[in-house]
Amino acid sequence: MLTFSKEEALIASQIKKLTHEAGSHHPNIFTLARELPQLKIEIDACFLSNPYATDLFLTYLTRELLDTHKIRDVLEFYPSQNQVIAAILADHLAVSKNKIFVGSGAIEIIQAILHNFTSKKIIINLPTFSPFYEFVKDEVNIVYNHLHKKDNFQLNIESYIQLVEREKPDTVVLINPNNPNGGYINLATIEYLLDRLRGVENFIIDESFIHFAYEDETYQLKRAVALTKTFENLLIIKSMSKDFGIAGIRAGYAIMAEEKRERLLKNGYLWNLSGLAEYFFKLYVQDEFLKEYYEVRIRYIQETKYFFAALATIPNLKVYPSLANFALVEILDGTSAFDLGLKMLLKYGIYVRNCADKIGLKGEFIRIASRTKSENKIIVQALKDILSNP
Amino acid sequence: MLTFSKEEALIASQIKKLTHEAGSHHPNIFTLARELPQLKIEIDACFLSNPYATDLFLTYLTRELLDTHKIRDVLEFYPSQNQVIAAILADHLAVSKNKIFVGSGAIEIIQAILHNFTSKKIIINLPTFSPFYEFVKDEVNIVYNHLHKKDNFQLNIESYIQLVEREKPDTVVLINPNNPNGGYINLATIEYLLDRLRGVENFIIDESFIHFAYEDETYQLKRAVALTKTFENLLIIKSMSKDFGIAGIRAGYAIMAEEKRERLLKNGYLWNLSGLAEYFFKLYVQDEFLKEYYEVRIRYIQETKYFFAALATIPNLKVYPSLANFALVEILDGTSAFDLGLKMLLKYGIYVRNCADKIGLKGEFIRIASRTKSENKIIVQALKDILSNP
Repeated sequence: MLTFSKEEALIASQIKKLTHEAGSHHPNIFTLARELPQLKIEIDACFLSNPYATDLFLTYLTRELLDTHKIRDVLEFYPSQNQVIAAILADHLAVSKNKIFVGSGAIEIIQAILHNFTSKKIIINLPTFSPFYEFVKDEVNIVYNHLHKKDNFQLNIESYIQLVEREKPDTVVLINPNNPNGGYINLATIEYLLDRLRGVENFIIDESFIHFAYEDETYQLKRAVALTKTFENLLIIKSMSKDFGIAGIRAGYAIMAEEKRERLLKNGYLWNLSGLAEYFFKLYVQDEFLKEYYEVRIRYIQETKYFFAALATIPNLKVYPSLANFALVEILDGTSAFDLGLKMLLKYGIYVRNCADKIGLKGEFIRIASRTKSENKIIVQALKDILSNP
Repeated sequence: MLTFSKEEALIASQIKKLTHEAGSHHPNIFTLARELPQLKIEIDACFLSNPYATDLFLTYLTRELLDTHKIRDVLEFYPSQNQVIAAILADHLAVSKNKIFVGSGAIEIIQAILHNFTSKKIIINLPTFSPFYEFVKDEVNIVYNHLHKKDNFQLNIESYIQLVEREKPDTVVLINPNNPNGGYINLATIEYLLDRLRGVENFIIDESFIHFAYEDETYQLKRAVALTKTFENLLIIKSMSKDFGIAGIRAGYAIMAEEKRERLLKNGYLWNLSGLAEYFFKLYVQDEFLKEYYEVRIRYIQETKYFFAALATIPNLKVYPSLANFALVEILDGTSAFDLGLKMLLKYGIYVRNCADKIGLKGEFIRIASRTKSENKIIVQALKDILSNP
């Protein structure tokens, strides 16, 4: 059992209060730092973002907008309308501009899709990213498909197909790789599932972490974008926050059937992206930027692999297989996730995600994000210290 | 009649095409510049924004975020959730934080309110800002209340009350000052209207241009915020784009009954503001910033008054009374609004808003925004030149 001083117990109760106030998402480090100035947070391993991609974006931003003072135009003037920004992405994604919808982060797109297209029944795998069940309309029936610990939280394809055929939902959701465990379904299997489940009106695949996944050592990006040509019911949701390290900008996109996009645009979403998000998307489709991005992507993937392997060597922890930039970690020695997280925060300034509020997880779990190489090293050492000297 | 060369006629047809593609909003100057590089746009008098406020914001941004490199945190990390940003505004607005909802621009708030609260019938004054009728749900009945040229497009208060009592809508909308004509309803009259129309479920006042209005030469800000305490049915919508000169950031807020805000948050809008919008709202409530802002606000109001007076001296133009930062201008000599706008663009590089697509306006109208003092001077001279030497 980990032990805490009186002062530490007081901080613990304040963290619990803040976590409660933040609902099903944890308070971010700025909220923590403001409310608990006595904490020294050094490493935010709650935060699922490639720091090298942020570095790269900042290099371009500094050169192209700050040094030239063009930043003024981006802040002062209205950004382009949704369909104008969507058109920027068409060539790069090799899909018709009329199938692309841009959003102020994936979260706005999740909300738009669930509110406008899901009217009867949705099947959601558990554990999951909570907005998928929180944002459904009241009259929608939610069917949960539990991913099992014994399967390493991997989706059982055939039983999933049977469930969908039995329940006949109008919407299914796959997050690939899944949040919070990082479980990955390969592209061939995705295509097989789509082929078997053509009757589902809205087949949502959230690829917000797809740039961290790979199927072999070439680390080639595998995404389901091209399948939107064959499967009219496929909706792809993509956040740019994580793999491009720009969560503060709020940028995401979706690909869907033209008539679905039309319905959304008829209802609004006119100037939903900021000038900086528009700038990001213009940058994102440039060959020079993409070439440099793929270098930092592979560097980060390799470091993340190394990090997960190091975590797996720590006694009393089980690291579940992940092809995302975070790992779901189970604590096996009876220490609670809250206590372990608290000790990491107090003693090492490391903030990890306690998964106690994640429905569908039985046991003590934390989710740890891969950060920079040196930060990952500190995280591994801290866990080793705590778990060997409780 | 204005005459145009063959080349100019070709540009005219391209502008018509771009305008058509932009729907009921005009293409912004960046779209124009990209699609028609032969144009030299010098002054954007289509754009309803205080340029001195942009200067002020940029001074703070440079000092606080760029020079300190704190900009990285704003771009990399998730911004705070809706209710956390809303709480920043509570003291300044002197309303409960539980009544404040923040939006990615006023446009997102208009959409949210119309989709969630307007279910039967809405009364909209014409001319208006088009999203108020474009974003209503299909099943909602729209009743238009025409503002009349002979009344200078001012709202007739008693006949408005009669119309509302007769039609029994669940929603009414007042834009104050109104877009596109700048007509203003003073605060005492607003209170009288609210008192007479307590039965309307959603009484929306869009105060997106309110910082440009004034009731006497002290130029004191008069806004309806405090009335939300007395009138539970009042919803105030506020864009920060115009009076604070930051349209590219997408920042706005609304004040409404607690249970309405709860309903919105239950449906999403979790991280709908960017890191920069959060930074702006933190700045906005600081005394030092506000003091400097009120100086540039009054300077701009005074220059705008002077500008409108100068426009009114031009023969063959009628300038309608406005307490916003733009004036609705009618062309009386038979020249079309399109031709006048085209000539201004081609010969002087000045972009004005052609109001041909504004429903409820019969005649030839353009809307001209007040810009910097020197730009306003150029606009007046250009109009004089064109209309005296057609």
